Amino acid sequence: MKVGFIGLGNMGQPIASNLIKAGHELTVYNRTKSRAEELLSLGAQVADSPGQAAQEAEVLITMLANDAAVEQVIFGTENSTGAIEELPTGAIHISMSTISAACGQQLASVHAQAGQGYISAPVFGRPEAAAKLWVIAAGDSQQIEQCRPLFDAISQGVFIVGEEPSKANIVKLAGNFMIASMLEAFGESFALMQKSGVEPKQFLEIINTALFKSPIYENYGKLIVEEKYEPAGFKLSLGLKDVRLVLEAAETATVPMPLASIIHDHFLSGVARGYGDIDWAGLGLINALDAGIEQKPDQ
Amino acid sequence: MKVGFIGLGNMGQPIASNLIKAGHELTVYNRTKSRAEELLSLGAQVADSPGQAAQEAEVLITMLANDAAVEQVIFGTENSTGAIEELPTGAIHISMSTISAACGQQLASVHAQAGQGYISAPVFGRPEAAAKLWVIAAGDSQQIEQCRPLFDAISQGVFIVGEEPSKANIVKLAGNFMIASMLEAFGESFALMQKSGVEPKQFLEIINTALFKSPIYENYGKLIVEEKYEPAGFKLSLGLKDVRLVLEAAETATVPMPLASIIHDHFLSGVARGYGDIDWAGLGLINALDAGIEQKPDQ
Amino acid sequence: MKVGFIGLGNMGQPIASNLIKAGHELTVYNRTKSRAEELLSLGAQVADSPGQAAQEAEVLITMLANDAAVEQVIFGTENSTGAIEELPTGAIHISMSTISAACGQQLASVHAQAGQGYISAPVFGRPEAAAKLWVIAAGDSQQIEQCRPLFDAISQGVFIVGEEPSKANIVKLAGNFMIASMLEAFGESFALMQKSGVEPKQFLEIINTALFKSPIYENYGKLIVEEKYEPAGFKLSLGLKDVRLVLEAAETATVPMPLASIIHDHFLSGVARGYGDIDWAGLGLINALDAGIEQKPDQ
Amino acid sequence: MKVGFIGLGNMGQPIASNLIKAGHELTVYNRTKSRAEELLSLGAQVADSPGQAAQEAEVLITMLANDAAVEQVIFGTENSTGAIEELPTGAIHISMSTISAACGQQLASVHAQAGQGYISAPVFGRPEAAAKLWVIAAGDSQQIEQCRPLFDAISQGVFIVGEEPSKANIVKLAGNFMIASMLEAFGESFALMQKSGVEPKQFLEIINTALFKSPIYENYGKLIVEEKYEPAGFKLSLGLKDVRLVLEAAETATVPMPLASIIHDHFLSGVARGYGDIDWAGLGLINALDAGIEQKPDQ
Repeated sequence: MKVGFIGLGNMGQPIASNLIKAGHELTVYNRTKSRAEELLSLGAQVADSPGQAAQEAEVLITMLANDAAVEQVIFGTENSTGAIEELPTGAIHISMSTISAACGQQLASVHAQAGQGYISAPVFGRPEAAAKLWVIAAGDSQQIEQCRPLFDAISQGVFIVGEEPSKANIVKLAGNFMIASMLEAFGESFALMQKSGVEPKQFLEIINTALFKSPIYENYGKLIVEEKYEPAGFKLSLGLKDVRLVLEAAETATVPMPLASIIHDHFLSGVARGYGDIDWAGLGLINALDAGIEQKPDQ
Repeated sequence: MKVGFIGLGNMGQPIASNLIKAGHELTVYNRTKSRAEELLSLGAQVADSPGQAAQEAEVLITMLANDAAVEQVIFGTENSTGAIEELPTGAIHISMSTISAACGQQLASVHAQAGQGYISAPVFGRPEAAAKLWVIAAGDSQQIEQCRPLFDAISQGVFIVGEEPSKANIVKLAGNFMIASMLEAFGESFALMQKSGVEPKQFLEIINTALFKSPIYENYGKLIVEEKYEPAGFKLSLGLKDVRLVLEAAETATVPMPLASIIHDHFLSGVARGYGDIDWAGLGLINALDAGIEQKPDQ
Repeated sequence: MKVGFIGLGNMGQPIASNLIKAGHELTVYNRTKSRAEELLSLGAQVADSPGQAAQEAEVLITMLANDAAVEQVIFGTENSTGAIEELPTGAIHISMSTISAACGQQLASVHAQAGQGYISAPVFGRPEAAAKLWVIAAGDSQQIEQCRPLFDAISQGVFIVGEEPSKANIVKLAGNFMIASMLEAFGESFALMQKSGVEPKQFLEIINTALFKSPIYENYGKLIVEEKYEPAGFKLSLGLKDVRLVLEAAETATVPMPLASIIHDHFLSGVARGYGDIDWAGLGLINALDAGIEQKPDQ
Repeated sequence: MKVGFIGLGNMGQPIASNLIKAGHELTVYNRTKSRAEELLSLGAQVADSPGQAAQEAEVLITMLANDAAVEQVIFGTENSTGAIEELPTGAIHISMSTISAACGQQLASVHAQAGQGYISAPVFGRPEAAAKLWVIAAGDSQQIEQCRPLFDAISQGVFIVGEEPSKANIVKLAGNFMIASMLEAFGESFALMQKSGVEPKQFLEIINTALFKSPIYENYGKLIVEEKYEPAGFKLSLGLKDVRLVLEAAETATVPMPLASIIHDHFLSGVARGYGDIDWAGLGLINALDAGIEQKPDQ
């Protein structure tokens, strides 16, 4: 398939690369052009603007940091026309970014007005293992089937959660909330262990062996136990953004989420104290600081 | 070994049974005597009082509901002498109950004064699979070694967390807090899904497949999705007790635990609204009620 | 002065009336035209559109429910041109509504571009006593001086909090947060009193006599004690909106506000359970329900 | 009346002094004897032990720091017999300390067994103005009438809240919770003001002039605005104790109090970070630190 691909960050790059390897024709765009070089060597075209990446695409994929970045690329800025104006009628925009439910909803509606398709398809998984991602897709079921070869090339499987695109965004956001809840619970427990004279490392081993048996508990637990908050796999400031978006979705749905509120406040305190760029497992650090435990995050 | 065993509840009965099967001589006591019958048929002696169960024991095991129950059995009441007065010098009391750190500490000190040993050894695991428990032990290392044949008979393994017995109690309590955190996160997420038009069941499948890969997430998640809060595997009112004990340990250690506070308040609201006897997964129900979702817990 | 006045709700009507009584020439607009009748009889002109109210004004005052209402009136809708297009160059827009800091900021900037002045001037006080309001004003100091005769006609005094208009909005929002905090504290305390056998009414009398000595404590405390949540003086759903705007301002300023988060979640639960239209003192009801106390809000 | 008086701290000393001035015969006891000197010069007898202070008393008043201190004085320690053994039959113990409801209840029951009376009578007010205190009394109404001359000598008035002594303790604790709620709301609001460019001092002036009109808002607000946390009028660690006792009473009454939980966690964090000895208005400092605002509490 002819694919326009915008956003070559930590996640975008390996996804684009896997699409090329699976035989798709990619025209890629990234604000910092140098990030496109590797893909150029794999055979991708490199576009000079979002519009150019969209021009002849059957499918346009965006993988960007947040709502604002997606809106700039799709609707354009003072200096550049938006991709929506160049994307052919009948083409489909797949947004893989972790954006708000409201943004997903808006994209669905403007693309429909422009005679284009739209799928929200955020992913779970780590960039290192891009072929092992899981796709959470919502949108018109025919459009999703049409894009299946692309999803197959980059993931272990696709979960289709409905016709309304925003549902996929909500699932992705709530998934991140579930992880953040685990981080907060770890942070509080480890602080308790440390000040009660139990090795946090041993506590982690015990609860994961005897209770959770979960690789994600093991990996994140270890990050906190070893205070390895840098370099960030996923920045604390992005954790803040995602939990804020969860709370926005919850407000729309009229659902109180007090645990999400607490995590939000802890992330916000982390950013306020200067830790926005460390890993979001840094909830461990915030809890340690609140408990009067001295930690040195950057050693 | 000659073992006195007090407390034949959901957990106590299968543990006692496994000890007998492993060849140990048991004298069992339970307030409601009928619960001892099955063990009688397996070859146990049945005592008429806690003191009698302790009388000739090398090791006295208690598996009871809370601090108060343990204190009554060990220190006695107006009507019966406590086990501590009958337990031979040099014998060891193993407390497997989920009790407070303070109670664990106190037991250690009174037994030491009485020339007896003491180990805090609460367990993780489900009664159905009593031989697959995990033991968290703290106490004098020689005493723990002495009791190892007993631990081996009832568990997959022993984690030794220190010489101070209360440390084992804190680890057990914090483990339960980790589970309760998962329940709260589920409760909030499922309410969000329900009011956003996503099937909670599918959300559960997605996050456990793509993120947690944890049997405990699968089992508890299912309980909430299916609103199967009765019969209770572990009562909500016991969840309240355990989180309160976590907060007491946290106060002693000077560690703020805002997530534990929220869970405490939700459990307390559950008890106040009449749901103390449903499963602690009922945090799902409390969150649903707070979100204005009608649920019928007893169907 | 020639004043355009848009928004004749509970607060707008008495304010407009006081301006007329003080000798100012008013052209008023309200979506529901019937609300303008009383002012007509006092000598006001009645406009058919926001634009018409703005047309010949030296000062345009808006007193509306929220950001969206202000934006519609100022920027127009599909069916009507916005007031900003009709307001003469050099005229000043005074926004008295409780709007977000972001909205205040945006209005300042678009009016400046249009060669018009802008002041954020929300008020504290009850409609019954409109001449006893307090004005919180922020904007260009010369513009504020120019409008002083208007402020004097409707208030006991003006607090000028800076040149940046959004500051006045933040002060108003934080003031409402302070009140909501009192309501939440009352709600929790009264539930405790009720379930501990102390008359909430007596508790109120004691703490206000011995501690706070505050009319606002007396009035709101009484509302909760007497469960007089209807008719609403200020709706619970508006309380939710204001605390959400506080949290937005706090996110912008990177300030965690856990108490605001809790109140937000309680208001949201109130709306979810069907209590959006009762008075925001209904935090008392939400806390009573969470404590398992049966209350009947509409009797 | 013949009065034994135990506990000559900040509150005890001026109360005792006012009782003497009103013509009562006092025998006073304080652990640190030097604090009794001023009262000696006013005509008090000075006792060498709690028991001696109680010996010939018609009424025994205790004004001590916490449950433990009251229990030591009343029930004795290894080294000294308790006051309860020396207090004549028919005499009344008035506990003015801020103790737990459970402790109040227990004292009532043991004194009844000993043929003595018991009243819980904690006070609101500042030591500087000891004659302007307010007494919250609960107990047998005849006993309270009997003690009225004493209450009159030290207060502006007595609120009688029931026959069950613990009710007075709960009212006192909940009153302190109401104050702490105000402190927390101030702390969060001031941090928001500071980081939004509004003078906290002006915000305080505005909300107290336009909304609360309360001397306690003015005084405590000023403490936080001026960061005058030392010397402490009431220590942060005592605030922690009182909110913990509120939460204990709430658990007993099955009432969730999420705002009390948050304040508890903030006080606990304050103690953990080394601020246990500053004034409880230091909630302002904790919120400032969490918001990344540098403050220097000891200047």
